[in-house]
Order: sequence, then structure tokens, then C-alpha cells
Amino acid sequence: MARTQLVTLLTDFGTAGPFVAAMKGVILKVCPRAQIIDISHDIPAHDLLAGALVLARSAPYFPPNTVHLAVVDPGVGTKRAILAGRYGDQTLIFPDNGIISLVERVLPLKDIRICRNLPSTPGYVSNTFHGRDIMAPLAGHILNGLNIMTLGPRPATYKLFELPVPNVDGNRITGQIIYVDRFGNLTTNISGELARHVGGRLIGVTTTCNDKDAGAMVNAYAFADPGKPLVVFNSTDMIEIAVNQGRAEDYFKAKVGSPVVMVVR
Amino acid sequence: MARTQLVTLLTDFGTAGPFVAAMKGVILKVCPRAQIIDISHDIPAHDLLAGALVLARSAPYFPPNTVHLAVVDPGVGTKRAILAGRYGDQTLIFPDNGIISLVERVLPLKDIRICRNLPSTPGYVSNTFHGRDIMAPLAGHILNGLNIMTLGPRPATYKLFELPVPNVDGNRITGQIIYVDRFGNLTTNISGELARHVGGRLIGVTTTCNDKDAGAMVNAYAFADPGKPLVVFNSTDMIEIAVNQGRAEDYFKAKVGSPVVMVVR
Amino acid sequence: MARTQLVTLLTDFGTAGPFVAAMKGVILKVCPRAQIIDISHDIPAHDLLAGALVLARSAPYFPPNTVHLAVVDPGVGTKRAILAGRYGDQTLIFPDNGIISLVERVLPLKDIRICRNLPSTPGYVSNTFHGRDIMAPLAGHILNGLNIMTLGPRPATYKLFELPVPNVDGNRITGQIIYVDRFGNLTTNISGELARHVGGRLIGVTTTCNDKDAGAMVNAYAFADPGKPLVVFNSTDMIEIAVNQGRAEDYFKAKVGSPVVMVVR
Repeated sequence: MARTQLVTLLTDFGTAGPFVAAMKGVILKVCPRAQIIDISHDIPAHDLLAGALVLARSAPYFPPNTVHLAVVDPGVGTKRAILAGRYGDQTLIFPDNGIISLVERVLPLKDIRICRNLPSTPGYVSNTFHGRDIMAPLAGHILNGLNIMTLGPRPATYKLFELPVPNVDGNRITGQIIYVDRFGNLTTNISGELARHVGGRLIGVTTTCNDKDAGAMVNAYAFADPGKPLVVFNSTDMIEIAVNQGRAEDYFKAKVGSPVVMVVR
Repeated sequence: MARTQLVTLLTDFGTAGPFVAAMKGVILKVCPRAQIIDISHDIPAHDLLAGALVLARSAPYFPPNTVHLAVVDPGVGTKRAILAGRYGDQTLIFPDNGIISLVERVLPLKDIRICRNLPSTPGYVSNTFHGRDIMAPLAGHILNGLNIMTLGPRPATYKLFELPVPNVDGNRITGQIIYVDRFGNLTTNISGELARHVGGRLIGVTTTCNDKDAGAMVNAYAFADPGKPLVVFNSTDMIEIAVNQGRAEDYFKAKVGSPVVMVVR
Repeated sequence: MARTQLVTLLTDFGTAGPFVAAMKGVILKVCPRAQIIDISHDIPAHDLLAGALVLARSAPYFPPNTVHLAVVDPGVGTKRAILAGRYGDQTLIFPDNGIISLVERVLPLKDIRICRNLPSTPGYVSNTFHGRDIMAPLAGHILNGLNIMTLGPRPATYKLFELPVPNVDGNRITGQIIYVDRFGNLTTNISGELARHVGGRLIGVTTTCNDKDAGAMVNAYAFADPGKPLVVFNSTDMIEIAVNQGRAEDYFKAKVGSPVVMVVR
């Protein structure tokens, strides 16, 4: 595999401690040319669904041959495998716990390997910090040209979880909130594609979240009055419920799992 | 314009989601040499004043030809323009919503353009995320040498807001708090320059915030006793009220807008 | 000293303000090749112990000749010295306030200098932001090849603080919590080395924190049931108390200073 230099990090380590920097130091020790980009270190602790969503909504935008290291890893130190996958033109390294699930829906799987034949690491391998001791050096070696084919066999199976699937009954789509962003905007599990397929031109759509009216479908947040709710296609073509310059999370008393009903026409 | 590689990002996107990383991926796709520096992603949501202050206090320190991308953009998807400006030896890209206002006070405007003739973008252009879909690719093209003159005409007018101006009555200056930093230190809208102009040697100055005595004017925080209030010229020569190793925000029950009175002599 | 390009930053400035970016701009102005890595900017304000711990647990992982800039500096603007030290193959710049204390325990001191003969700085030197006005340009010059020997004499003495030392009485080790990480995991001041020295094979160890049983010593977090407490050697070989997929901080109502008792055998 060609030498490359871009590597991203996604963890639930937070930014107050030494953990992220220790990983970066190790990557740079193995691959001094590495250019490290943070995706996020503020994934809620152990939250594989949030990690999977953030990874799937950011990794596809990177240049070819970027290496992505996803370390939300409550099973660190157990027999859970570390996997390396080639998805589209991106390379991902991740524990076998489902965090790859949503990347699989947006980038085609080309190859996936169990990381068994690990290259040498610059330090002691702990049982509690494989991000630093196994995955960071591995990322450095892949940046240096190591082909993931050499790491081990393809897994017979590996963990994937499914997002809840929206239910369609005539012109009524029932779904739920799957992500709350920094603005309090509510991402649903209903894609724009599905809504258009069921409802055509989507004129006169009504939407509720937690049984509360979410207002009209508009092209952008500022087409609702400040403080008023609205429905948009978000930047990954999912239906999103928001409040212009406000917090839909509070307005709808919503969280991940809250029910959403759209009646389309 | 010369090829350059430094680009900074200032947003209100937070660091828990995929938004910042998606922008970085797009910049790197357009300009693989880009070196990306975060100014801040923790501007309070939609807070143009805080964004303007942070931008004006950081952008001037960067090397010539740095490109700064400021994406606090509650009007995304509406007809608000995206502007590109040349300020001093820096280039800034920003929505026409006033976020540039305070940069205009510290760096001389050389040229400003409406971004109409946009270069090609690597992906779909959404209505809700122009940071990723328009401004990030534009920054990449400017890093690659695109001259902002080619982007469009100069705007007839664009939004600028004014900071509240301090009132001077004899030796009494009345102002207010305009920024609260991470330490709880209170930046006022009274410049050191104004205070010296009005009060000369500034010996025996008295200062209050919310009618509470702010103590003596000192050279640095640690010249007050721990827990005691003080007044300093801050690192951008603005009058700042602080508490040594404490939080002036709490001590004075102050926030943006709280009144400050200095009697200088 | 050889030219090098990696520089890390550790501060208590937070990420919402302009302070970190201003430092980065200055470093890049002095040394355009600089590659800047954040260790953390979320050290609690003025918390030298937390800063010292995070620095000691991250700096040693970086490639040779990395320059580390540690700016937790409540005494900024007073006569406290700025020091530059060579520790192992790393270079550190820090105020003389003890923040270097724990690096001294993990990396051998090779040389240390008072920074008096400062190279030129690109801007005005304030009394309240030496991170930007003195330490950042100094870091840039060191990246450019400046030898710290030229900066000034060795200090006759400088501040070092000691971590509390665990007490050993027969097979009973009494210590305390010294750090709480993002997961709520509790780092103690008892090293794995000490525990093994006192207790040999460490079978049947009992541990309490705040008099509450901390469960068995295991190899990794996931070997306890979810929600149950456990004791591990952490990734720097310190005894750590955790709750699998939970927060030991809450479970034990613990904080820095909370007592820990291990009976080893």
C-alpha cells in the first residue's frame, strides 16, 4: 500500500487527560511524517452508537488513504479482536465492538483483517490502553506502507449493530431520534431518500417529536422564525428536527430514542 | 496570490460531533498540503459577538497569508452572502453577519469580495452546512493560490456591529463587560489607551463592576492576594477585572453587559 | 541543538477563547515548519498537580527533540523564572512553579536553564500572557535550533513538589487518589511496582477506597461485570480503581485525596 500521512483519531478519552497526546506521540514516533487530525475525543464514554455515527459522518470526507483510528473500547484487554478494514478508499482501525457499523452503510467494504501479526511497538503493551500501545503504532506502520492484508486472516464474523429502522404505514413514517448535536438539533433515523420515496414532493408534511408539532419542512434553519421549530434535510440527507437559534432538544424534551412521526404527502 | 498552507478554523460546532472533522477532510481533499489550526470550536452557539472577539484576538498573530475560516452561521442556507476579505496580511472567509466586525478594528481592510464565482467542490452542497460544502473547499482553493479578487464584486455594504462605546465624563469612565474568559476574568470595553489618555499615570484609580470595588490596578494577577480582586491591562491592552487564582465572574456576579466604572487620576 | 519541528502545548486556557490560537500563531511566525500538537488545554485553572500529572504521562511518548511548552502559570508577570529543561531526549519550557515535578520522576534531567537571554519576539510583551509573548517565541527559536545552554545559568534551586508517598505497614499499603480521569477512573499514588514488591503474586488482594470495597484485581476493566468495581494496573503501572462501564468517582464518592487501603498477599 502506498505511503500516506493523514491519520485521524476518534476516541471517548476527553481532552483533559494525557491519553490522546500519548497516542499522538506514539504515532509520530513510528511515523514522523504523520499528520494527525482529531475527529473527536468527546464521544460520550463507552457510547458506541455516538462513536459510530460521528465516524460515519466524517471519515468519508477525507482524502484517499487516510487512516482512521477509532478507539471507543470498553472491552480493552479482553479477547475482543482489533480489526483493520479498507472501506472505499479509506483505512479504518477499530475494536470489534460494532463501532464500524455505520461506516459500513456509507463506504463499500473492500477488505477486513484481524490484527494478529502486529508490527513492533515502541513501548510496553498495557492491558488497559491498547489505543496507545497497539492501535497507535499500528496506524504509524500503515502510514509507513504496511498492507493490512499482512495483519491476519479475514474474520469469520464481526460485530455490527443496526440502527432502528423506520416504520412506513401508508403515508405515515414512524421513526426516532438517533443523535443530538451540539446545537440541540435532533437527527432522526428517517432519510430524506425514504421521505421522498414515500411522500413525493413533500408538500404539507406534518412532523411530530414526542407528540409535539415540529413545524414546516424548510430548506434551512433560518427559514423558521427564531425560537420556532422546523424540519430540514440535514447535511447527510437525514430528516432533522431543529429550532431556529434555539435548542430542539429542550423544546421537544427529546433524547436519543424519542419517537418521531411524519405524515407525508 | 502566493500558495500558502496555513488555515485556521473558528466555529460554534463544538468538538463532540462530526462537523469540524468533515470540514477538515474537505480542506485536505482540495489542498493536501494544508496545515489546519483550530482557533476554537467552542464559541457559544450562534454567538456572533464572542466569535468576533475571539477571531480578532487570535487572527492577527498568525503568519502572513494565513487563511481564516469563521463559521458561526445561523443564516446558513439563506441569501446571506459569504464574504472573503483581505485584512492586513491575513485572508478571512466568513458569512455576512457581522462576525468580522472586530477584526476590522485591529487589521486594515485591503479588499473584500462577495463569493459568487465559487470553484468546484468535491461533494454535494447541502443547505445546512456551508462550512463543509462551500467555505471549506473555498479555503482549500485559496491555499492553492486562488485570488479572492476573482470570487466576485466588492459588496456595496456588509454587516458590521459596534461594541458598546465607553462613556467619559471628566475623570470617570463608564463601560461594560464584553467577554468572560475561561478563568472567569472579565474583559471590559475600556482600552488601556483610553484610560491612559483620560487619567495619565493612572495612580489611585478606583474601579467597580456591578457597584463592587475591583481593587487596585496592578501589573499582573499575582500582585493581588489570592482570592482578592484586581484590575490589569490585559494582553490586548484592554482593562480587565480579575481575581487572583479565583473567578471574577462569580466574585462580581458579572456577565457580558455588566457595568464597569473607573475613576482615573 | 538539531533543528526539529514537533512542539506540544499544555495549558489551563480552555478551548473557547483566543489564547491557545494566539500562541500557535506566534510559534508558526517564528518557526513556519513547526508541527503543533495539543497535549491538553483543559487542565483545571491553576491546577499545577493535574498539569504535572498530565505532562508526565504524555511527554515521554513523543519522538526525540520534541519541545513541550507547559503554561499553567498563575504567577505570570511576577519574578517567577521561566525555565527550559532537557529531560531524557525531550525539551521542556515551563514556569518555575513545580509543574515539572512529575516529569522529573520519569525522565532523567540532563540540563536546566533560567531563560534570561531571550531571543527577539515578534510582538509586544504583555504582563499577563507570557505563554504568547515569551514562551511561544522561545519554543519557535528552540525548534529553529537555539540551544537552551545559551538561555542563561542553571538555577541554584527551583520548585518541585512531591506526590504524597504511600505508607506500608506489613502487608497493608495506605495511599490516596491523585487523579480522576474522564471516565471517572481513580488513579492512586500506589505503583504496581510497590504493590508487587510488598505483596508478591498479588493473589487475594483486598482494596478499599473511602472504606468501600473496590473488588478484585483484574487484568482489564471488562473482566468485572458492568457496573461493578475493580482494581487494575493502569497504563503507567499505577494502581487504578475503576467501575466497568461506570464511574468509580461516583461509586466511591471519591476525589483527589480520598484514602485508599490495599491489603496485599
